Amino acid sequence: MVIINCDMGEAFGLYKMGDDEGLMPEIDVANVACGFHGSDFNHMRSTVRLAKLHGVKVGAHPSLPDLQGFGRREMKIGREELTNCLLYQIGALKAFLDAEGVILNHIKPHGALYGMAARMEDVAEAVADAADVYKVPLFGMKGTLHETVYQRRGHTFVAEYYADLDYNAEGGLIITREHDAKDPTEAAARCLRALTEGKTRSVAGNDIAVGSDAICVHSDTPNAVAIAQAVREAVRPYLAAR
Amino acid sequence: MVIINCDMGEAFGLYKMGDDEGLMPEIDVANVACGFHGSDFNHMRSTVRLAKLHGVKVGAHPSLPDLQGFGRREMKIGREELTNCLLYQIGALKAFLDAEGVILNHIKPHGALYGMAARMEDVAEAVADAADVYKVPLFGMKGTLHETVYQRRGHTFVAEYYADLDYNAEGGLIITREHDAKDPTEAAARCLRALTEGKTRSVAGNDIAVGSDAICVHSDTPNAVAIAQAVREAVRPYLAAR
Amino acid sequence: MVIINCDMGEAFGLYKMGDDEGLMPEIDVANVACGFHGSDFNHMRSTVRLAKLHGVKVGAHPSLPDLQGFGRREMKIGREELTNCLLYQIGALKAFLDAEGVILNHIKPHGALYGMAARMEDVAEAVADAADVYKVPLFGMKGTLHETVYQRRGHTFVAEYYADLDYNAEGGLIITREHDAKDPTEAAARCLRALTEGKTRSVAGNDIAVGSDAICVHSDTPNAVAIAQAVREAVRPYLAAR
Amino acid sequence: MVIINCDMGEAFGLYKMGDDEGLMPEIDVANVACGFHGSDFNHMRSTVRLAKLHGVKVGAHPSLPDLQGFGRREMKIGREELTNCLLYQIGALKAFLDAEGVILNHIKPHGALYGMAARMEDVAEAVADAADVYKVPLFGMKGTLHETVYQRRGHTFVAEYYADLDYNAEGGLIITREHDAKDPTEAAARCLRALTEGKTRSVAGNDIAVGSDAICVHSDTPNAVAIAQAVREAVRPYLAAR
Repeated sequence: MVIINCDMGEAFGLYKMGDDEGLMPEIDVANVACGFHGSDFNHMRSTVRLAKLHGVKVGAHPSLPDLQGFGRREMKIGREELTNCLLYQIGALKAFLDAEGVILNHIKPHGALYGMAARMEDVAEAVADAADVYKVPLFGMKGTLHETVYQRRGHTFVAEYYADLDYNAEGGLIITREHDAKDPTEAAARCLRALTEGKTRSVAGNDIAVGSDAICVHSDTPNAVAIAQAVREAVRPYLAAR
Repeated sequence: MVIINCDMGEAFGLYKMGDDEGLMPEIDVANVACGFHGSDFNHMRSTVRLAKLHGVKVGAHPSLPDLQGFGRREMKIGREELTNCLLYQIGALKAFLDAEGVILNHIKPHGALYGMAARMEDVAEAVADAADVYKVPLFGMKGTLHETVYQRRGHTFVAEYYADLDYNAEGGLIITREHDAKDPTEAAARCLRALTEGKTRSVAGNDIAVGSDAICVHSDTPNAVAIAQAVREAVRPYLAAR
Repeated sequence: MVIINCDMGEAFGLYKMGDDEGLMPEIDVANVACGFHGSDFNHMRSTVRLAKLHGVKVGAHPSLPDLQGFGRREMKIGREELTNCLLYQIGALKAFLDAEGVILNHIKPHGALYGMAARMEDVAEAVADAADVYKVPLFGMKGTLHETVYQRRGHTFVAEYYADLDYNAEGGLIITREHDAKDPTEAAARCLRALTEGKTRSVAGNDIAVGSDAICVHSDTPNAVAIAQAVREAVRPYLAAR
Repeated sequence: MVIINCDMGEAFGLYKMGDDEGLMPEIDVANVACGFHGSDFNHMRSTVRLAKLHGVKVGAHPSLPDLQGFGRREMKIGREELTNCLLYQIGALKAFLDAEGVILNHIKPHGALYGMAARMEDVAEAVADAADVYKVPLFGMKGTLHETVYQRRGHTFVAEYYADLDYNAEGGLIITREHDAKDPTEAAARCLRALTEGKTRSVAGNDIAVGSDAICVHSDTPNAVAIAQAVREAVRPYLAAR
């Protein structure tokens, strides 16, 4: 059983980001940006509405405070400060969920914060601290502090496989400031393999173990809709009912 | 019966604003800034904790998005956009309330937004739209659109009297970018008169009708604590139990 | 004699805005955003470089501080504060001009500020105050305070005609938060008429007097490059040498 | 020969920071914040005016983009991006210098950026890249990359001694988010020793070599004026004419 999730609602003011309308029908769960790396109060509202219209569940996708860097620059931040930073964003999203009668499904940190939580104990603990308030699952990377810290703290951990990102030899994600287009067929095949074998090929050529409770596609990849469609088609037999 | 409320938590980063520790024992209700005119996620958390410690109730004090202008510059903003702007902030505060086990007591728009809601229908409606999600009382000025729109929309309206601001001949508040010190004895006497006679003297010398369900003191007035103490002493017989 | 100018460099972080590469060959003068309504320090640098590469002159395109509203929301701001706001932005752009060995060609306020300067004396004076420091021409609308105030203050005034915006019956621009596509042929014809007859047709159907020292095309109109090409082709006999 | 310099103009909007009026008479050189960690366009203008009034020279004090963290949180930023970030801020300050007829005296990076430039080659190079545009001296720490990189790049290097910060055993500064009060007499004695012996005592008890072309006092230390006065009195025989 698998779900497809996607980072959504990352437009800001007049600026566009990703084809949310095109992607929403292809996914099960939307990770909605909360205004710190992308999105703003208007886009958060309309994204929650769009998700609701398609029966897509909504999670919070909070970030380090870095709109100009799209949350993809690491910064030093203490545990308590980070917890507060996350709560602010999750709470802000929750207002729109409350307004639209939608429940908060999960929390998934964004970008640099996601990577930091995978390898820095204090950061993972701060994410868990914020999740304590909402008691919802946390999305992350199998075999990292995401898994160990979140589970030790009693949170449900949902292991993600990335359809459109490369993995290094040690199983880490290769995160770039901008995402290149990927071949949809290849992405779909990688997802299916991750799902059925629990493995993926790294850029170094070795196979690494990966989780796949959820498959993530990015909305800011140039051909994101084509990737999502191909992936959805390939994993359809394993999809949980929406 | 009256309560004393105060705008709180308006510090930002390393910047201080107001003696919240000194004021909290003197008030019944704190209007906590939500990061758009003052405050940030850290100060919101600590202010909610401080209020809880003193048994002070907490309301949201959302603003136009204008940190540099401290929310005291008017800007054009549409009804739906403003509703979303308010929901974002109230939700953000609610995260800290949820984290600390405190309920949202009320909503009170800040600064220029407060003034705009008093005289612009669309703005008052947007405030009511946001309040629809939380079903909590709205604080405002008697005899303005605050009263008429909020009540027509089915919200509880709490009429405020300002201990430290001047009123013009028509009963409007004279809002300045920075607040000057006021004589505490005189402020206390004005409050008592507002409470017992429902009137106050305007800067033009005429008496105007004012409500006084709640007395507001500002934390950024230089001698705010002295004013709050004098006011509290003067109106003690009329104070609701905390 | 006419020049074609265009608002450029309005991308922000990972967010795109307009096809600057496509437009630059079609224009004579770029109004470069300064980070307050669009752009950031990276896009300002690259836009100055792109303009230099094409022999396009660069002016400052400062705005009210409103990134989320793309500078298209009016706000109350005092004259001195606005002058400082403008100087900050123009100076920031000047750093990139200095770094690239390009001179500051002119100043053109953006969006809501442009509209405010057309009809509010204090705003037009603030623009002139900022221009006093740089002694460069100011772009604006004929028959408004742009013309009268800037000229009275001793600044060179360059009258603009808008290829892609509608005019109301009184000769004012109809500024919208987002720009719709326009028919390039029609836009070109309008420009040619403005240039040769000094007139344009308003949305009300009457002819109004317009200046046309410079023709402005917007980069965030969906078919901006096609409009610019058609306009350039149509007015080619009147173009100043680049 | 020595000069006393101080970080100035770090107020923001209605928020105060430091007693600039009290400090200005005690210093020779002001490092003026540029809006990214503190200050805004209004405070930059008034600080330049205040410095001019007192015959105090003005340098740029640019920061990482982090107003909420007062520029005291490290973040990952590439060399070219950082150069642009610095140019934006220096240019913005230069607008106010140009408006007031004051020349740019030097550049001194702020907070976390200052620390990063001391030990990260790319960061020091980016500072030098920005300084290339202005050809002014760079302030920094002797025995760090500040000295070696700036000098190799052909810039004048001014070695600072910190009157109000502790040094660790290796000669590094101990930078805290907030500054505690220091004993003025002790601070003055430390400065005099740094000046005459080129040494200071670290928190570990060992003597370390320090430069003292310029003595830095912070405006956000609680008793900053008293420290500045005591230091100025102590080093008076060595002060360069203002």
